[in-house]
Amino acid sequence: MQVGKPILYSYFRSSCSWRVRIALALKNMDYETITINLTKDGGQQFSEEFQALNPMKQVPALKIDGITIGQSLAIIEYLEETRPTPRLLPQDPKKRAHVRMISHLLASGIQPLQNLSVLKQVGPENQLTWAQQAISSGFNALEQILQSTAGKYCVGDEVSMADLCLAPQVANADRFKVDLTPYPTISRINKSLLALEAFQVSHPCRQPDTPPELRA
Amino acid sequence: MQVGKPILYSYFRSSCSWRVRIALALKNMDYETITINLTKDGGQQFSEEFQALNPMKQVPALKIDGITIGQSLAIIEYLEETRPTPRLLPQDPKKRAHVRMISHLLASGIQPLQNLSVLKQVGPENQLTWAQQAISSGFNALEQILQSTAGKYCVGDEVSMADLCLAPQVANADRFKVDLTPYPTISRINKSLLALEAFQVSHPCRQPDTPPELRA
Repeated sequence: MQVGKPILYSYFRSSCSWRVRIALALKNMDYETITINLTKDGGQQFSEEFQALNPMKQVPALKIDGITIGQSLAIIEYLEETRPTPRLLPQDPKKRAHVRMISHLLASGIQPLQNLSVLKQVGPENQLTWAQQAISSGFNALEQILQSTAGKYCVGDEVSMADLCLAPQVANADRFKVDLTPYPTISRINKSLLALEAFQVSHPCRQPDTPPELRA
Repeated sequence: MQVGKPILYSYFRSSCSWRVRIALALKNMDYETITINLTKDGGQQFSEEFQALNPMKQVPALKIDGITIGQSLAIIEYLEETRPTPRLLPQDPKKRAHVRMISHLLASGIQPLQNLSVLKQVGPENQLTWAQQAISSGFNALEQILQSTAGKYCVGDEVSMADLCLAPQVANADRFKVDLTPYPTISRINKSLLALEAFQVSHPCRQPDTPPELRA
């Protein structure tokens, strides 16, 4: 049985790791980070040691309370159920449904299509177009959905799990040079989020494994 | 404000629609189905009418209690919160985390990589290999995870949201001719699930829009 601090297996640039880092920061949790470099040594996530921990060979994974959880949204839901303050899901079930719909749109509908392993399969010459297409297509839908759900943030005026998925996906959009002009609501919410301390301390440019040239 | 029965927008072969149909059947809910043919007329999900309802242009979507929810796991979580009996998530938070980890592994880690719109982009000559690779890679991880979580079903001996994701993904694996020999636990659980009435009445071979040649 594990004792002590939770351990987050994380990679600075992984947008799914960033989601969890924001949750841990918002909930003011103390944790250790073990960095898994997804590109070094052919990908440290493929080591036997890491595969035993997370057979999906993906980050993030969180060791906590004697179990290891993979899949960022499963981790966040567990944190929410066991450390409910501050809440990342609203109380009202309909608003919770909106938060989860947006979270899953980002986590199932966009991110998997533009992650590292898929882009490798697509091949170097098609990667950029492929990623841009996946992100634009999802953002077109999201921008429309936000018209009826957003306040200051994705759902109303409180930061929720949906926002924890949004900011990292916008950062990926930037990396893949997606034109954000058609998404004024997404852009506005992202700007508000990046002003929050929890999003700043967890940012890819400020992690233990961030290379010096990408630090800010 | 909507009144009356919930309306499920569904396509017989959509594995994500099937997840929700199983949930509705297990919770013994009365609902109407509106079928959205994903291949006819260039795809009915692209109609203006359907896009207004679900900007992601995907099934399933569920109109219920005056709101419309997209994303199958968001729908199932909403049903669980508002119609808690029988439960699709265990009471223990750690077991809930296992259920969600497996559900998300299937819903974010496998299904999006082998859905219709991605396979169209991949092109006809590469589709089969692409889909097989996505499914095998996910099933390798899942088979390993199930060694520590499974009882009769994915997590212990009660049907959970994870099982609602498993059976439809195994059906997709069959369609894409994935060899299931390396996955005895997945195969065993799937067989137990297909024996349950809720999985049978919601099965793709028994939907209002199932073509005669695929009926069983």
